[in-house]
Amino acid sequence: MQLPTGVHVLVRRTHEDRVMRALQENGAMSRGEIARVVGLSRTTLSEITGSLLQRGAIVVVDTDASRRAGSGRPAERLALDPASAQFMGVDFGHRRVHVVIADASHEVMASDAVRYDGSASWATRTELALGLVDRLSAESGIHFGAIQGIGIGVPGPYPAPDGPAGSAGPRAASKAPVLRPAPEGVDVAFAERFHAPVIVDNNTRLAALAEAISGADSVADLVYVRLSDGVGGGLVVGGQLVTGSAGLAGELGHVTVEPAGRPCRCGKRGCLETVASVPGILAACWQFGLQLENLQDLAEAVAAAHPVADRVLREAAAALGRVIGAATMTLNPAKVVIGGEITRLAPVLVEQVAATLAAELFPVASAGPVVEAARLSDDDGAIGALAAVFHNSPLLAGYPESTDVKEATDAPDAPNSTTEGAAHVRP
Amino acid sequence: MQLPTGVHVLVRRTHEDRVMRALQENGAMSRGEIARVVGLSRTTLSEITGSLLQRGAIVVVDTDASRRAGSGRPAERLALDPASAQFMGVDFGHRRVHVVIADASHEVMASDAVRYDGSASWATRTELALGLVDRLSAESGIHFGAIQGIGIGVPGPYPAPDGPAGSAGPRAASKAPVLRPAPEGVDVAFAERFHAPVIVDNNTRLAALAEAISGADSVADLVYVRLSDGVGGGLVVGGQLVTGSAGLAGELGHVTVEPAGRPCRCGKRGCLETVASVPGILAACWQFGLQLENLQDLAEAVAAAHPVADRVLREAAAALGRVIGAATMTLNPAKVVIGGEITRLAPVLVEQVAATLAAELFPVASAGPVVEAARLSDDDGAIGALAAVFHNSPLLAGYPESTDVKEATDAPDAPNSTTEGAAHVRP
Repeated sequence: MQLPTGVHVLVRRTHEDRVMRALQENGAMSRGEIARVVGLSRTTLSEITGSLLQRGAIVVVDTDASRRAGSGRPAERLALDPASAQFMGVDFGHRRVHVVIADASHEVMASDAVRYDGSASWATRTELALGLVDRLSAESGIHFGAIQGIGIGVPGPYPAPDGPAGSAGPRAASKAPVLRPAPEGVDVAFAERFHAPVIVDNNTRLAALAEAISGADSVADLVYVRLSDGVGGGLVVGGQLVTGSAGLAGELGHVTVEPAGRPCRCGKRGCLETVASVPGILAACWQFGLQLENLQDLAEAVAAAHPVADRVLREAAAALGRVIGAATMTLNPAKVVIGGEITRLAPVLVEQVAATLAAELFPVASAGPVVEAARLSDDDGAIGALAAVFHNSPLLAGYPESTDVKEATDAPDAPNSTTEGAAHVRP
Repeated sequence: MQLPTGVHVLVRRTHEDRVMRALQENGAMSRGEIARVVGLSRTTLSEITGSLLQRGAIVVVDTDASRRAGSGRPAERLALDPASAQFMGVDFGHRRVHVVIADASHEVMASDAVRYDGSASWATRTELALGLVDRLSAESGIHFGAIQGIGIGVPGPYPAPDGPAGSAGPRAASKAPVLRPAPEGVDVAFAERFHAPVIVDNNTRLAALAEAISGADSVADLVYVRLSDGVGGGLVVGGQLVTGSAGLAGELGHVTVEPAGRPCRCGKRGCLETVASVPGILAACWQFGLQLENLQDLAEAVAAAHPVADRVLREAAAALGRVIGAATMTLNPAKVVIGGEITRLAPVLVEQVAATLAAELFPVASAGPVVEAARLSDDDGAIGALAAVFHNSPLLAGYPESTDVKEATDAPDAPNSTTEGAAHVRP
């Protein structure tokens, strides 16, 4: 299916967005009232509402017959269709995809996950995700005529680094899983299915954005690290997600912390990941005689104040704190956030990171960032993807622009800040 | 003196800028020709050219009598005044201020420095700088009626970090010279004197910007480190200079590289600065029996291939390479630049940084940044300040905006990218 493209689409989307927001803020309104509130001509508004009605984004709720004083034909009153989805967040993990659907108020309407095998192709993963959306739609009576934006989180660097051998060449077969090619086609599949702009980014980076804008105390400069099977990171600098020159920014897990340390899956030795990932921590516990199989075992050892667990966790956190110290000297963030389930099971991690970090910084208290555990859990990856498409995110406004968007901002009715102003926008 | 402020000033400046650029590109033109080229009404253009003539930015060179076919009064032809300065760069070092004055083509018209005592107040330094500008003006017949922007580089963090004790409180008396208060008032003095917008930033950061946009191969992501009496740094990320949440971004010199190392002037131990600054390198040479007094001695030892000098330089560069490795994993820059006079005297430094960095990165060649010595010298600090005000820098467009600027971009005639779109703009 051919998608409409270019400036006109963006302008139309902006109009639609204004109409939807007016209805969201004011409840049911007549076309005349909407036209006044959003500052559009009756003709343009009529086109917009016609399209929105046809797609089921809004519904006719009644007429203003009972409320009007003047004569003439009663005007229809329009309102948002509460069953109409507005935003979608999709998080592709290594073994499951999580989908969150939100309404115009950014409230979650439906959410679920579906598992797949770690070897599943991207075509299969995409098909499973779209099937999940269909199921949620059927179960919850949600329809998608007015989707404003879709955020998709993927594991691994995004955009895929440009290798001399091509993105799907020898690298896919190398020992460096963090460098496997990004899932081309996922964005197109969602854009074509829902006729909405799609933002794709690394899911750890999207989590960083979600943490930066979460709550009332949003920050413009944030360093985010997630400890799980690996150690990933994401940066928000000056209010923008940082991708780097080749899509590799935020790879704090592969900073060397022990030059003669254990081999890392990336091909180096002694990366932070080898000591601060969950497998790295469990391996160190074994090395000191504490035989733990999994995160649950570790949680029990922590609860029992086992000295080996405490020591290993503190050493891992100290290494993490030194890496974050260098990142903090480099970027001077207002906040450092440590994510991953292990952070909740072992609070000593965040405590020790904060203590090590304090020693790594200038001896001036005011210069140090706040250090805290992530507010969103690992299962909230789709929330991070959702965060990237919420219009009213002041952070998104400055996210790298596509050429189309630059053109669009020259148009008279173009937005200052819309979902379309984001990276990797389709259409 | 009260300065005009707000949107109208910015719009007027944009008009002036367009007129000046048209004259720069086309040579002498009549008002009618200018109006067509820049798309302004004759009335608006007349106001603009009147103001520019009055301030001496442009001059009447002749009339079009000899070139025109039609009847009527011959039209005056206007041209840039070659003696009219357009941009100014000012670099305040610890012991001298350097001023560079450039014309509309970004060509340097005049340049000089004046020394002061390290204990000189900011009022004294400002007065000396303004006196230097006066002298250059008198000597070279330059006038300043049409200055479009002034860039000022200052040592130390800028903007000054907000301490609980105030910016001029106990911090000024602390052992941390990198944290002394920024020179308030310098920007105001220059803005009032020249009626031009002023950008102030840390001079190492401005050097980073100058390196990022130098030459044909400008990059959007760059890590810059300068080795001199200390070790400073600057970052360009996604095309923007990074200041950090408290003005402290880029302090790579104070990343810990030897936890039990020498005390650093910042109050910590074993900072990169203790091993990779010029004093740090000289001290290490003494420690291994090579008694060098200064950089010149070191250059001779390097020329003579003295093994101690080589070993010390390689170790310093290896430490630097590890710090840059962490910064590169964090930010994924396209280029790493090492500045400071020592870099030219001892090429082994850049070689060893590149070698260490290669070992610190993912074993995928394409992911690594270019590593090179700075193109601009330490004496070119004012060039960095100048770089920050050159209108046509695509990097400057995204530099943090002031509130005034945000308003201005909503105005119908507002620029997409002008000097006024920069941080710390006055008026």
